[in-house]
Amino acid sequence: MTINVPGQTATEDRTAANVDKRVLVKRGAERARYSTSEVEAILDSAMVAHVGTVRDGRPIVIPMFYVRDGDSILLHGAPASGVIRRGDADRNGGTEVCVTVTLVDGLVLARSAFHHSMNYRSVMVIGQAIEIDDPEEKAAALHRFIEALIPGRQCDLRPNNAKEIVGTSVLRLSLEHASAKVRAGDPIDDEDDYALPIWAGVVPMRTVFDAPVDDTRLGDGLEVPASVRAITST
Amino acid sequence: MTINVPGQTATEDRTAANVDKRVLVKRGAERARYSTSEVEAILDSAMVAHVGTVRDGRPIVIPMFYVRDGDSILLHGAPASGVIRRGDADRNGGTEVCVTVTLVDGLVLARSAFHHSMNYRSVMVIGQAIEIDDPEEKAAALHRFIEALIPGRQCDLRPNNAKEIVGTSVLRLSLEHASAKVRAGDPIDDEDDYALPIWAGVVPMRTVFDAPVDDTRLGDGLEVPASVRAITST
Repeated sequence: MTINVPGQTATEDRTAANVDKRVLVKRGAERARYSTSEVEAILDSAMVAHVGTVRDGRPIVIPMFYVRDGDSILLHGAPASGVIRRGDADRNGGTEVCVTVTLVDGLVLARSAFHHSMNYRSVMVIGQAIEIDDPEEKAAALHRFIEALIPGRQCDLRPNNAKEIVGTSVLRLSLEHASAKVRAGDPIDDEDDYALPIWAGVVPMRTVFDAPVDDTRLGDGLEVPASVRAITST
Repeated sequence: MTINVPGQTATEDRTAANVDKRVLVKRGAERARYSTSEVEAILDSAMVAHVGTVRDGRPIVIPMFYVRDGDSILLHGAPASGVIRRGDADRNGGTEVCVTVTLVDGLVLARSAFHHSMNYRSVMVIGQAIEIDDPEEKAAALHRFIEALIPGRQCDLRPNNAKEIVGTSVLRLSLEHASAKVRAGDPIDDEDDYALPIWAGVVPMRTVFDAPVDDTRLGDGLEVPASVRAITST
């Protein structure tokens, strides 16, 4: 993927030197990651984004299901598109948003309270969220959402009908202006504190899928399909 | 806890009828939860909030470590307080924020793509985030943060020094204006679709703590303390 921002050529990736200043990581700059591959890898590891917009001059943040689609992300608007569409910072047909995705990877337990921390990976994307109107593009987007939840699931389902496609809102946000911030590894203590007789280290955290639970109205003889078993067997 | 909002007496809890309209759940109103106990229970189950504010008229959303402290939440400002403090919607000495916390509990796999969903619990809190200046109050807040990470950990640590307390920012946000939204349970399919030979159900999700990893500079003979073992043994 190539990024096209002022000061960048088409073959150049984002760096601290050329990134939009609104996504420049100012505090903890050593934890900043600007490369497209790192931003995309984090986005591909999560499912829910927190989407901020401005309404009546005030901030509003809502959780939304999202999936990456090449050099943009798609936001599933059914439960929340009204909130986003009513944002009052609209420009160029879209709504100005800040989309933040955070994965917590562990508790960082230092020798002093002050240096306790968390290991995490986060991405911030800013730009104009633009509603997808074209029915074919929207149908493709809905397919991507299902495949992001459960790869292969779409084949097991009946096709969407036209009413369902109209009844869902999908917003597209370019990844042109994005940055990531990552903390990993050991606590970083004051040098004098390493001699203290205090255990320090990291407690890793991760999200797991448990065994599927049948719908209480499941028809007789229907078993968990391979696509669903695949995500829960790890 | 009692809540004091217009239209409410001191002994009355929040309801859809008396809650501030900015936190009223408009879409999916049947999933709204306004009671103090339900809002608090969700807040007590997570650690990271997404904090939205407005800067130069535009939204910005950052992840922050938080803990509930009675009828408010404390936001740990070290990495991000500058962002929050520079918000341009300041009133009454604080910064106007929207704080959203989301826990994803499962994938909801329906018989049609359209009715796929997620089970989740989320809370939205709006109000003025006010920086804690008083050193004693801030010291108590820092203690609460450590105890939220690992109950009992503070006893194993050296005390904070004055410089560390000054060097950390903590913001307090009242829970006066808050609401929750919860989806749980089975998919809800179109009545005709229940007859289709398609597996449907829920894949539960949860966050787990893995076995603690020693700091690579850990002193000889130091073992994982009981407080840390307690959170990872479940």
